Amino acid sequence: MKIRVGVIGATGYTGAELVRILSLHPEARLVALTTKSYAGKPYCEVYPHLYKYNRMAGEKMDLPYLLKACDVIFIALPHGHAMPLVREAAGHGVKIIDLGADFRLIDYRVYEQWYKVEHVARELLPAAVYGLPELYRASIKDAWLIANPGCYPTSAILALAPLLEKKLIDPGTVIIDSKSGVSGAGRSLSLGSHFSEVNENFKAYNIAGHRHTPEIEQELGKILGGEIRVSFTPHLLPVTRGILSTVYANLNSPVEQAELLRLYSDFYQEEPFVRVMPRGTLPQIKWVAGTNHCDLGLATDPRTGRVIVVSAIDNIVKGASGQAVQNMNLLFDLPEDTALAGPGLYP
Amino acid sequence: MKIRVGVIGATGYTGAELVRILSLHPEARLVALTTKSYAGKPYCEVYPHLYKYNRMAGEKMDLPYLLKACDVIFIALPHGHAMPLVREAAGHGVKIIDLGADFRLIDYRVYEQWYKVEHVARELLPAAVYGLPELYRASIKDAWLIANPGCYPTSAILALAPLLEKKLIDPGTVIIDSKSGVSGAGRSLSLGSHFSEVNENFKAYNIAGHRHTPEIEQELGKILGGEIRVSFTPHLLPVTRGILSTVYANLNSPVEQAELLRLYSDFYQEEPFVRVMPRGTLPQIKWVAGTNHCDLGLATDPRTGRVIVVSAIDNIVKGASGQAVQNMNLLFDLPEDTALAGPGLYP
Amino acid sequence: MKIRVGVIGATGYTGAELVRILSLHPEARLVALTTKSYAGKPYCEVYPHLYKYNRMAGEKMDLPYLLKACDVIFIALPHGHAMPLVREAAGHGVKIIDLGADFRLIDYRVYEQWYKVEHVARELLPAAVYGLPELYRASIKDAWLIANPGCYPTSAILALAPLLEKKLIDPGTVIIDSKSGVSGAGRSLSLGSHFSEVNENFKAYNIAGHRHTPEIEQELGKILGGEIRVSFTPHLLPVTRGILSTVYANLNSPVEQAELLRLYSDFYQEEPFVRVMPRGTLPQIKWVAGTNHCDLGLATDPRTGRVIVVSAIDNIVKGASGQAVQNMNLLFDLPEDTALAGPGLYP
Amino acid sequence: MKIRVGVIGATGYTGAELVRILSLHPEARLVALTTKSYAGKPYCEVYPHLYKYNRMAGEKMDLPYLLKACDVIFIALPHGHAMPLVREAAGHGVKIIDLGADFRLIDYRVYEQWYKVEHVARELLPAAVYGLPELYRASIKDAWLIANPGCYPTSAILALAPLLEKKLIDPGTVIIDSKSGVSGAGRSLSLGSHFSEVNENFKAYNIAGHRHTPEIEQELGKILGGEIRVSFTPHLLPVTRGILSTVYANLNSPVEQAELLRLYSDFYQEEPFVRVMPRGTLPQIKWVAGTNHCDLGLATDPRTGRVIVVSAIDNIVKGASGQAVQNMNLLFDLPEDTALAGPGLYP
Repeated sequence: MKIRVGVIGATGYTGAELVRILSLHPEARLVALTTKSYAGKPYCEVYPHLYKYNRMAGEKMDLPYLLKACDVIFIALPHGHAMPLVREAAGHGVKIIDLGADFRLIDYRVYEQWYKVEHVARELLPAAVYGLPELYRASIKDAWLIANPGCYPTSAILALAPLLEKKLIDPGTVIIDSKSGVSGAGRSLSLGSHFSEVNENFKAYNIAGHRHTPEIEQELGKILGGEIRVSFTPHLLPVTRGILSTVYANLNSPVEQAELLRLYSDFYQEEPFVRVMPRGTLPQIKWVAGTNHCDLGLATDPRTGRVIVVSAIDNIVKGASGQAVQNMNLLFDLPEDTALAGPGLYP
Repeated sequence: MKIRVGVIGATGYTGAELVRILSLHPEARLVALTTKSYAGKPYCEVYPHLYKYNRMAGEKMDLPYLLKACDVIFIALPHGHAMPLVREAAGHGVKIIDLGADFRLIDYRVYEQWYKVEHVARELLPAAVYGLPELYRASIKDAWLIANPGCYPTSAILALAPLLEKKLIDPGTVIIDSKSGVSGAGRSLSLGSHFSEVNENFKAYNIAGHRHTPEIEQELGKILGGEIRVSFTPHLLPVTRGILSTVYANLNSPVEQAELLRLYSDFYQEEPFVRVMPRGTLPQIKWVAGTNHCDLGLATDPRTGRVIVVSAIDNIVKGASGQAVQNMNLLFDLPEDTALAGPGLYP
Repeated sequence: MKIRVGVIGATGYTGAELVRILSLHPEARLVALTTKSYAGKPYCEVYPHLYKYNRMAGEKMDLPYLLKACDVIFIALPHGHAMPLVREAAGHGVKIIDLGADFRLIDYRVYEQWYKVEHVARELLPAAVYGLPELYRASIKDAWLIANPGCYPTSAILALAPLLEKKLIDPGTVIIDSKSGVSGAGRSLSLGSHFSEVNENFKAYNIAGHRHTPEIEQELGKILGGEIRVSFTPHLLPVTRGILSTVYANLNSPVEQAELLRLYSDFYQEEPFVRVMPRGTLPQIKWVAGTNHCDLGLATDPRTGRVIVVSAIDNIVKGASGQAVQNMNLLFDLPEDTALAGPGLYP
Repeated sequence: MKIRVGVIGATGYTGAELVRILSLHPEARLVALTTKSYAGKPYCEVYPHLYKYNRMAGEKMDLPYLLKACDVIFIALPHGHAMPLVREAAGHGVKIIDLGADFRLIDYRVYEQWYKVEHVARELLPAAVYGLPELYRASIKDAWLIANPGCYPTSAILALAPLLEKKLIDPGTVIIDSKSGVSGAGRSLSLGSHFSEVNENFKAYNIAGHRHTPEIEQELGKILGGEIRVSFTPHLLPVTRGILSTVYANLNSPVEQAELLRLYSDFYQEEPFVRVMPRGTLPQIKWVAGTNHCDLGLATDPRTGRVIVVSAIDNIVKGASGQAVQNMNLLFDLPEDTALAGPGLYP
């Protein structure tokens, strides 16, 4: 019998990407797509690229119904909205994968400080598993509540994990310069996503204040086994999909580039979605667009004693909905790459 | 046993798209990727989006070897290059799918006039089947030589076929205004595909002289059962993938829009890849990007007595490599949408 | 003494373009920038590209004040909003240049039919001059009320005027296929201008129903001296600026391309902003971006007996604010190209 | 009498931008446009945006003639090509502005190490003045040979100069993460500038090895009064024009953001082209596109003790041809902003 799936917040971009991926999933069956704005409307009228592939209609959220009808519920809502829903869902035996930030930060005070919202489900934080399979595969399999990672954190953590685990870098020197496509800002209208404002443009935003900073620091700190403070600067690329992060850190002592590449290849050897690029090749966002891959490349700079790591993901796939389905596959003991394998489009 | 596939000209964009699609095809196995420029080089170094999905190396073309090792050969070369190869291949029992123009025009004189090249395989023209499954499915199944349609003709013919078959329009009034993404110009370098020249730009080109004109007229004429002359104007869109054609024709007598939509829905009812949009919805190239779909929409204009049909395809998929695989599926009695089903990415 | 200028609706894109152009105008002085949304805010905070070039603040509209303080008022508001303002302004001796549609259509019934709004200033329609200097230069100089043309009509009318005036084409066969950049949709937020929806996309819209149709037909009819019905189809290009119109018409009798080019060159010989491209060169939107030019090119097609004319303008400059300043220059007896001369950026 | 100007290498993008700017310069007259590829061809056929604004033809370079006919010669050639020309020009009383790298590095050994070319005009290096007016205005006025700065260095040096001069940062911690539009790669064809490869893509390149690194370090070292080693990583943006550099450095001791903004405002107070953005506003490349501005913004991060400075320029204007004309204006005692003032286009 197929996994019965509900998507709460199905008409945002991450919701639509869940629907697209799941429509190709041989072991999953969508049973409900909830939406605030399009209830009653055929889903493929909201997203006509799905004509012939989805015949459902959007519906108002009815959580009690979902808890009966679903084996797993994806929550694709802005932060703050998942907490009450997850409280209500707790104990019903339904798996929850939250694509928002509500359950990513272990310490509710950090959450409240950065998100300016009271955390109303603190008691559930210990149950939540940070859904980055490359680091927490075993715990994910046993969890009922998955905090699906943020897009920027996914790109930053995978870029730095091997270096921090091996304690090869000075944690006080980490700088993460990230560039994201516009789809990361979602489908809600804003001047910042208005075509004529973004097209042929590029800017940094939220310098020294982006909410993904504490998430990155928490996860890097866990790998390091200690506190870490990083500079994280997001930028807005005039493209639809993709995040490229350029990460700088001082090496504790000189290491050959080839040795670091071996380290990365070993670290991610068994990973279905991490591709370590050969020497001299650096990731490009177009090579991962539409896929669940995270491509990694690096260079050392003997002149400055630094290592520079570059990572590329599709912000809506590995940075959101693809990773969420990867987590679902783990939760239900399916091959991890079900509905997620395959190269992207190029060019 | 899987179909053994060779691709001649594998490092151009249509070649790369064949490799991408076939790497996901459960019944096909790539046995040779030939290339002039990259022989000996790992294919995934030329196209890194295929890392982990293709472990072959490009090789120089060795046709006798291919004719022994392959069940089907795709030829993805510029026009003029397929003719001698197909002559050599004839009679060896290998299926040939030519993505170029050499076998599309029934009359070699028309070919020579528009392409300014002598046709050196005239005797094979009667054997070639024009590979548009929506019109010639039965003949394709029995053929050994498929002339895969051009990208613009695919979009134009599917847009006009129902109207011409039912003789609803005045054939002397057909105007096809087409707009294509830049990938249609291929991977060869030229100022016309140089980023800074194309980006934020738009132009018409080859007005009243594009080589796809006689191909369109031949096929429309066959449907109509008579000669037809059309105005066809291609334009260059600053996007990578997609063709949108806006087609104008005078209706012989007033017809309701709803009736025409019914006609189109009926005409394409059994087609796996043609989607007729509901009233009021017009195709957009992003809805078909990365897919083998052809989306169709239309409107009537009682003020002018015209019908306007809009069609959208991905120029490299339904306009080239996807349609070629669709033809391969037909040639080998596979479900027609094998490796081709599924919605595209959005946004 | 400089011309004192007011701009009503200064924070939309056409308003901002007026401010940019006028900030470089040696004979004009901005005295008021009115805005609904940003009153009290420094204008260069709304449009930071103007830092150092504009030190004004947006203010709420106070028409009586404007009528005293200004020699000319530009109205850059959505249709329907100018009518009451112009009524109030009439008789005060202030020149009015309306960039909207309220005074473009001679027949108020046509306006009401297409715009679904009652025309509340019908008595002023006879006073309004259609502000296309290439056709109405003399009348513009003597007018007090200018109806600045729409962007699409500007591109279509200039493309067709010589052919219609010389009665070389069959007016029943005119098809205008236009493609516009997104800035034409203005700064108001909508899903249709949301980056991720428009980027890498292309579509037709408002087929057989766009409001610029009656404006085009009125003006072409005046040139022709009779009624004319055209097919006009607008499309949305994923670029910020530019309109390219491809115009088709049947020639009444065969004419050489060279002869038509001579006709166009003669027709526009004295025009400062119309550039007729030499044989074999077709306009591109990037060649006119940021300028007040209208570039024209054409080809004849002896096979079909048609002529195809291509025109390119910048939709916000020659299609709106640049043309408005051109009209202002005429109203105040200044050299017509003041603040408007100069080539655009390339690439 | 006007300044007589020659441009060597006039058909590349920086050459074309010189022609565009100079065609609007009231005190300059173009006397020769030399070109390898287009000799004899009307310049406006190569660059049709200049129709009506330039009536010259490209010509083969004839240096002796240029030295007689010109007061100033701009050299817009790839590195390595200017050295022999400048040797030949020395002593003729003609001003030379070299837009390439041949005379930017004081130490010829550094040049030879990074550019892999022998420096054949070492004896002229002491005469060359680094043409960054914000730092070397006085020396520029007296020079005959100007080494026009690189695009990335311009953006990096202006971002860091105030901090280094005041010794507020640890020079060992400087990281410059730069993102450039594609026009920076010029008009020469390459796969790296092929539309379908660049569009919707983003990548880092030349990590720890870009040739602008020693130029940046030389100039920062001069300000600091000591050696400095920086990490500089260039990236390729899918836009035509613009460089945005995000610069990180550790503050020697805590400083308020407001104090740093005051420092920057004071430092650049008299500069016609540097705009320091107010608190909370960060530069965007679209705000400077087509202009000679360098916009600067900054933020401090008390958590990490770092300052992050963001700078934006148009790579072809302030990063090349605009700055070159600014230098020409200084050389000939003209107002520094002649032909360069004015806001850019937006949107």
